[in-house]
Amino acid sequence: KALPRSAIELRCQCVGTHSKFIHPKFIHNVNLIPSGPHCKNVEVIATLTDGREVCLEPTAPWVKLIIKAILDK
Amino acid sequence: KALPRSAIELRCQCVGTHSKFIHPKFIHNVNLIPSGPHCKNVEVIATLTDGREVCLEPTAPWVKLIIKAILDK
Repeated sequence: KALPRSAIELRCQCVGTHSKFIHPKFIHNVNLIPSGPHCKNVEVIATLTDGREVCLEPTAPWVKLIIKAILDK
Repeated sequence: KALPRSAIELRCQCVGTHSKFIHPKFIHNVNLIPSGPHCKNVEVIATLTDGREVCLEPTAPWVKLIIKAILDK
C-alpha cells in the first residue's frame, strides 16, 4: 500500500497500513518517516524480501518489536 | 558515507558511521536494514532534509532515541 516514491517526497506515502504480522525474515528493510509539513502521519514502510513495499502501523506493538529486534541484533 | 543504492542491494551500504549527534529536525527519514546474507552489519541510514544520506551507528544511544522519538510522535 506504499505509493511510488523517491528519496524525499512532499506528501504522505501510505494510503493505509498492513494490519497483519509480517515475519522479520520477510523484511528486507524498514523506512521510518517522521511526521512533518509533508504529512501529518508518522510512516513506517517495510520493503519485503520479494521487493514489495508495505506500510506498517507505527503504533502497533509488533511493529515496534520488529524495529527493536533489528536494532538489537 | 552511504553508497548509492536501489531499494534492495546485495551488499553492505555503509562504509562507516557518522558519530556526531544529528538533530531530529534535520532528519527526513531513517532506513533500517537488518543484517543478513548481503551484509553482516545492521545498517541505519538517515536521509537528511538536504538530501544527504548518512549512516548511523545502530548501537549508539542517541540513534535509538531518535528512532523511538519518531515512532512515539
